[in-house]
Amino acid sequence: MSYRNIMALKYLTQKLAKTIDEELMSQAGGFSVDQLMELAGLSVAQAITKVYDKSRYSRILICCGPGNNGGDGLVAARHLFHFGYEPNIFYPKQTKNELYQRLITQCNNLDIPFTNNLPDQLKQNDLVVDAIFGFSFTGEIRAPFDQVIQELKETKLPIASIDIPSAWDVEKGNISGHGFTPAMLISLTAPKLCAKQYNGVHFLGGRFVPPKLEKKYDLQLPLYPGTEQVIDITNLSGEKL
Amino acid sequence: MSYRNIMALKYLTQKLAKTIDEELMSQAGGFSVDQLMELAGLSVAQAITKVYDKSRYSRILICCGPGNNGGDGLVAARHLFHFGYEPNIFYPKQTKNELYQRLITQCNNLDIPFTNNLPDQLKQNDLVVDAIFGFSFTGEIRAPFDQVIQELKETKLPIASIDIPSAWDVEKGNISGHGFTPAMLISLTAPKLCAKQYNGVHFLGGRFVPPKLEKKYDLQLPLYPGTEQVIDITNLSGEKL
Repeated sequence: MSYRNIMALKYLTQKLAKTIDEELMSQAGGFSVDQLMELAGLSVAQAITKVYDKSRYSRILICCGPGNNGGDGLVAARHLFHFGYEPNIFYPKQTKNELYQRLITQCNNLDIPFTNNLPDQLKQNDLVVDAIFGFSFTGEIRAPFDQVIQELKETKLPIASIDIPSAWDVEKGNISGHGFTPAMLISLTAPKLCAKQYNGVHFLGGRFVPPKLEKKYDLQLPLYPGTEQVIDITNLSGEKL
Repeated sequence: MSYRNIMALKYLTQKLAKTIDEELMSQAGGFSVDQLMELAGLSVAQAITKVYDKSRYSRILICCGPGNNGGDGLVAARHLFHFGYEPNIFYPKQTKNELYQRLITQCNNLDIPFTNNLPDQLKQNDLVVDAIFGFSFTGEIRAPFDQVIQELKETKLPIASIDIPSAWDVEKGNISGHGFTPAMLISLTAPKLCAKQYNGVHFLGGRFVPPKLEKKYDLQLPLYPGTEQVIDITNLSGEKL
């Protein structure tokens, strides 16, 4: 581990997370949503393989929300399929947007099942990926996701959350008490403030931040190893520090 | 190595390569150019790290042509940067298309130098990536690429070609005699017929082909290991078989 890796991580406010995301996809940043979502979803899938071996956790239920977090989940489902897992997708509020329709088509072409019955699926899978809400979430949790969150809170399956545990406040954590605590968190680009209260297995993905942008916002990103798209930051993060 | 891996690889005609590419990006296939180019470029960068260690081959000159092969090269340059290499880009015929302009912006934001002086660059780099022409190339090689190919033929630097060695006929190989023989070839999706005449280090990238599409065209793809985006097919391919 390099010196840089033992420095403190920077945790982003909701506003800063939004600013960085917009900057990457601005004309000056040059990225398309397609590109960043592809790399984000790939990093999620790769992180999951490092913690949940397919010999024991082959059936993975991806629960997708209506926004970009759900899109990351759809991409992750596709890569998990290619990595030899058996993903199932629960996506109750599908987005009409062309990108999302294409991501659905890609999963359909792999015969990844889309399901409407969450309770049944929770009995038939080994792991849940929480791709419901990401860093941009605000306000009340509306139906059907209030019920979805409740069912995830009750399941005994391990849950891997993308970017933030859904139903947590992006900055303050599980203040409503309605949220669940996932077994694994995969932060994207940089961890959000709520992750300071998270003590489980924690990976970081999103190896695409230009050093200039990192410096501008003093992100203190860890050094990714080799050609990995993810890095295990469990021991760098959370209250343990 | 699994049984499947020792079966013969299928080598694509130019027409079949085009058909598969179009099918992936059709409404039925659902992929955008952005997505596939991102995965292709990432696989190229990953393959290069496996053969050319950055301690010895840190400075990499990416020679980009005007089409998609050049775009793959721009994406590879970006990932090579994130993997700790020092890419330089020679891109004499830049495409005005919005996607390519964004890929250039992404490289500019990493301060990857764009250069116009090929002879100088060939003195200052450790490795060349040939991203000039891909499977769709036909006809005569026009200026400035005739001269570029000649200079690559004369260089003593190792060359890694993306998809096909530029100036080779996609099916018949180096029939004009104007082409060079790269030290490494990174085929994308599936090798093209010309690769049968190639005896160097050979990787395959493009881990996104749906099994149904693979079956439809009897592609006989090897099984990618772990979460790798590439597989070494050196011993499965070429005249040696």
